Amino acid sequence: MARERRQGGRRRAGRARDAVPAGPERAVDYRDLRNPFEPVCVYSDDQIHEIHRTALRVLEELGVKILLPDALQLLKAGGVDVDMASRMARFDRGIIEHAIASAPSMIELRGADDQTSTMWGGRHVTWCSVGGAPHISDLDEGKRPGTLEASENIIRLGEHFDVIHVQSPNVEPQDVAPEVRHYATMRAQLTLSRKPPFLFSRGAPQVRDGFRMMQIMRGLSEDDFAQTPCVYTVINTNSPLILDIPMLQGLIDFAKAGQPSVITPFTLAGAMAPVTVTGALVQQHAEFLAALVVTQLSRPGAPVVYGAFTSNVDMKSGAPAFGTPENVRAAFASGQLARLVDLPWRSSMPSVSNCVDAQSIYESQMALWGATLGGANLVLHAAGWIEGGLTASLEKYIIDIEMLQQMAELMQPVRFDEAELAFEAMKEVGSGGHFFGATHTMERYRSAFYAPFVSDWSNFGQWTETGAKTATERANGIWKQILHDFEPPMTDLAMIEELDAFIARRTERGGAPPES
Amino acid sequence: MARERRQGGRRRAGRARDAVPAGPERAVDYRDLRNPFEPVCVYSDDQIHEIHRTALRVLEELGVKILLPDALQLLKAGGVDVDMASRMARFDRGIIEHAIASAPSMIELRGADDQTSTMWGGRHVTWCSVGGAPHISDLDEGKRPGTLEASENIIRLGEHFDVIHVQSPNVEPQDVAPEVRHYATMRAQLTLSRKPPFLFSRGAPQVRDGFRMMQIMRGLSEDDFAQTPCVYTVINTNSPLILDIPMLQGLIDFAKAGQPSVITPFTLAGAMAPVTVTGALVQQHAEFLAALVVTQLSRPGAPVVYGAFTSNVDMKSGAPAFGTPENVRAAFASGQLARLVDLPWRSSMPSVSNCVDAQSIYESQMALWGATLGGANLVLHAAGWIEGGLTASLEKYIIDIEMLQQMAELMQPVRFDEAELAFEAMKEVGSGGHFFGATHTMERYRSAFYAPFVSDWSNFGQWTETGAKTATERANGIWKQILHDFEPPMTDLAMIEELDAFIARRTERGGAPPES
Repeated sequence: MARERRQGGRRRAGRARDAVPAGPERAVDYRDLRNPFEPVCVYSDDQIHEIHRTALRVLEELGVKILLPDALQLLKAGGVDVDMASRMARFDRGIIEHAIASAPSMIELRGADDQTSTMWGGRHVTWCSVGGAPHISDLDEGKRPGTLEASENIIRLGEHFDVIHVQSPNVEPQDVAPEVRHYATMRAQLTLSRKPPFLFSRGAPQVRDGFRMMQIMRGLSEDDFAQTPCVYTVINTNSPLILDIPMLQGLIDFAKAGQPSVITPFTLAGAMAPVTVTGALVQQHAEFLAALVVTQLSRPGAPVVYGAFTSNVDMKSGAPAFGTPENVRAAFASGQLARLVDLPWRSSMPSVSNCVDAQSIYESQMALWGATLGGANLVLHAAGWIEGGLTASLEKYIIDIEMLQQMAELMQPVRFDEAELAFEAMKEVGSGGHFFGATHTMERYRSAFYAPFVSDWSNFGQWTETGAKTATERANGIWKQILHDFEPPMTDLAMIEELDAFIARRTERGGAPPES
Repeated sequence: MARERRQGGRRRAGRARDAVPAGPERAVDYRDLRNPFEPVCVYSDDQIHEIHRTALRVLEELGVKILLPDALQLLKAGGVDVDMASRMARFDRGIIEHAIASAPSMIELRGADDQTSTMWGGRHVTWCSVGGAPHISDLDEGKRPGTLEASENIIRLGEHFDVIHVQSPNVEPQDVAPEVRHYATMRAQLTLSRKPPFLFSRGAPQVRDGFRMMQIMRGLSEDDFAQTPCVYTVINTNSPLILDIPMLQGLIDFAKAGQPSVITPFTLAGAMAPVTVTGALVQQHAEFLAALVVTQLSRPGAPVVYGAFTSNVDMKSGAPAFGTPENVRAAFASGQLARLVDLPWRSSMPSVSNCVDAQSIYESQMALWGATLGGANLVLHAAGWIEGGLTASLEKYIIDIEMLQQMAELMQPVRFDEAELAFEAMKEVGSGGHFFGATHTMERYRSAFYAPFVSDWSNFGQWTETGAKTATERANGIWKQILHDFEPPMTDLAMIEELDAFIARRTERGGAPPES
């Protein structure tokens, strides 16, 4: 066991390097990720069907409260048993099954070009930055309220790294007035990034504005836009068993515009959902299905993502916990439920730690593995989320990207041929030699392995000499360098002028206050 | 998405608590872990067979250098093609297949009692503390040479936590002379812990001493001892394709005594093994099989563990890397190879970071998931390993235990019945209520979820008020408390007297210097 230590360094690499031409440099491209792993299951097929059946029973016997009158009318017209006075809707299973059959299994979300378009469904995997954090944090200035500048910086980081596939509402720019904030965040996403943007469902006027901005920047007519998914929203149910006004309006508006809603019940076991993970999953499934019906009655075939957020809470304080064993188990199970209804599904990579410490990393790693092995198609909050979503950390962002890239590497197809088996290399080196200078090594060493950009593989002496920096300290230098070097993607100046003219006109008329 | 934040706290738990009798407290027991997950595969069955066949070709055509003359004689007598001058042994596949068939698929390693005995094989999972680190480190005193006191402290931690199933050579007690060091480390393991101990293969005299100490403390005759696996060693090959003298002697001595060898080729891709992961696995498999033959010719049916340590190196410096995508892939594949030869298998949970930072955690998490999803039966270095094995960190030890416990929780069987589905709870709470005071919750809340001991789930304000401690700082307080409270397990004082008399006799005669 004495050998099971850092000993590679005793035989330095590169001695024979000058003599033999080196192979190609490593080229990485994480834009089109496919999950090669068979999903991990926690329930038997029978049990998954039983969860589904119990969710149908919840919808049929208990029902869901629908706060938006238009949505109640829509459901009533679609055959749902609606009580207008109590605003309760009870769904028979035929209507649910029809909605399941009508929603598409695969969504292509278009970016500004083919390179940034992305697929949701099947074995496709897409990752997304932190979303919805009120605060921003970094090592230099600590935790502080989110600003437009901070939001723009995270958009820049999301544009820079190709493991990030879509943009997100990252931090809330609290320095911009609420009625014009959506102009600023949409403008930032559309001018600093070519990836698909996120739009909050904060009432019909804001959503209409956001759609118009998409049409301008993607050069789409209203009709073409309605055929081209290119902007997404997240719809959280108000668990247990309520859909509120802006969420219902968002479901309807996005469905009618052919744009995807990521429908995510907020089912924290023990708080807004039953204390058993299985029970919380029943409720998650029921709430999702109710919202699904709203979308499919608004427009049959509207794109929808099965969102799963089930985790547990601290039963002493009621505070949510993430990256826990229960959270991972719920992710595995959510994959099973999403596959049962044959829809793309969304997971998360959260942590509740208040800083970028060991806890924040093991929580996020647990969640990442839960999402990966659960077969998630879309992982939100996959870079930068700490403090249960209250803060976006720039250092955590960089470290999360490192973790995502390593997972992306693990997803790469395995080459397998005579050369990979390396019999001839072993013959060349023989007993007791080393492979540093072998021809087989020389041909491949520059592309053989993933090269991390946060991990420090130097020995203790070198590491100490260069300042004994932790990964978090190194990450601080990395985000600064990326932001310093960032150049916005080429965009059509005429489009930006049109966008700005639209924003100016709308701002002059008072913008669009968020609705609740 | 605004809801996807720490909001549980707004509805405090416990309001209704006083009224309803609470359910039972959570009881945890991680001694008998079974892996419920189907192993993740990176190769097809055909490809795994091809790796196996190529390893057989390596053994047949290239051979392995055997440095111990007795082992060469043993192999020769067993029908292996041996060249005494070059010390090369070439194995035909019939001999290999015979050895594979002869080694047991399941090993019961006995501790001092039934509670601490452990199974290696099938779906059993056992974890083990860091092994073989020359240095110890903690937040108070930093990195320093290992001492007997440090070693004893890690033994105490390993005894305390039931996710640690066997003891390990943790840190090297450099304050004890080499010729008597094995007495000190064996005595510490046998008096401070009831779990199965580790014994280094540093030559026949030390191994003989260690076996005698086992017989004394387990009350076994030499014959009974030879029928009772209760102490294990790790055999590292001297890759590529060499088995050195103390390792061969260890293989023979442990096999003859019926004690398990964890045979672990030291195949770092790009350094001591081919630069391709597939090639490194071929070599790992070949080296393991050669050592396996030595054990089975020494004693048919001798217990052996398939050890896998394949990872990559930094091709710029030659330094080893762990917890990398290549390391995880190799772990998945090693599980496939171990199952092909139907033997228990061993993985690791290492990191190369020089401190307990984010890097050390994501590397160890990656390795833990590689081991878990690869179906490893024994995970060495699973608590406390940093700096590529050069240092054992006490804070990392505690954080690793937290990660192991969370993984152990994920392995627990899922209950599934009407009550878990929680339809009645949802009916009781209705739309827009909360579950904190529900009967279903009250009956279960104290045992529903895993309760972490390192993770801090408090909010930013509370966390700041209590000193804004990182997980690493909290871990510092935890190991101190455990060591402060530690009481050695009841042991037979007469046995300890006999042990000490043996040690005194042997020490008087000069002990047993390590052999190399």
